Amino acid sequence: MADFQTIAKQFTDYYYSTFDNDRSQLAALYRDGSMMTWEATPHQGSAAIIEKLKSLPFQSVRHAITTLDAQPASQNEASIMCMVTGQLMVDDGQNVLQYSQTFHLRPEGSSYYVQNDIFRLVYG
Amino acid sequence: MADFQTIAKQFTDYYYSTFDNDRSQLAALYRDGSMMTWEATPHQGSAAIIEKLKSLPFQSVRHAITTLDAQPASQNEASIMCMVTGQLMVDDGQNVLQYSQTFHLRPEGSSYYVQNDIFRLVYG
Repeated sequence: MADFQTIAKQFTDYYYSTFDNDRSQLAALYRDGSMMTWEATPHQGSAAIIEKLKSLPFQSVRHAITTLDAQPASQNEASIMCMVTGQLMVDDGQNVLQYSQTFHLRPEGSSYYVQNDIFRLVYG
Repeated sequence: MADFQTIAKQFTDYYYSTFDNDRSQLAALYRDGSMMTWEATPHQGSAAIIEKLKSLPFQSVRHAITTLDAQPASQNEASIMCMVTGQLMVDDGQNVLQYSQTFHLRPEGSSYYVQNDIFRLVYG
């Protein structure tokens, strides 16, 4: 098993490239007990989370990670906490939005799923 | 036991008011297994974490929370994940710094301690 930093890097790279290409494909990364809070609104379960992500009012989107920090989240299992700060470019707009996102990843077999996901835009 | 939103609000209010008044007092909120990543540099254990916080190069500091989101982090215990975005004002400077911080809180008796803490300044 790779170390937590490598897993966090691989996970977030995969997550954002999938988000930017076809965000409906992110369903595989959530479970029924997963939670996502998007701009203060909570959603639970893969279906509800993907419904929310698909409903976001932009056609094209691109994420660029500015910082990524990760830590082991438990002494009992290989779960990982990570926080991303980054930039969001939507619909080829000139405005670059800053965001922060926290993921709590839990191991499942040889892979990981998202237990917790908190997303916020950051206004300067 | 209060709900996770109330606990997260109480915790972060207490954390930042303690930080701003006498950050050495935050030692009580960390344990030997606690981790803090401060601007990419990892620190483990209450003593190392407080040493780092005390070494920060500012005399006066004030945090103002802009957003706080919280979620239950486990099905097995009352642990809580929260992400704060906020503003940091140091040494009465005119500049307001944006930051993001993630806390993973674990229950202990009738209280909580910080298992994971990730802090980053966010530059616009």
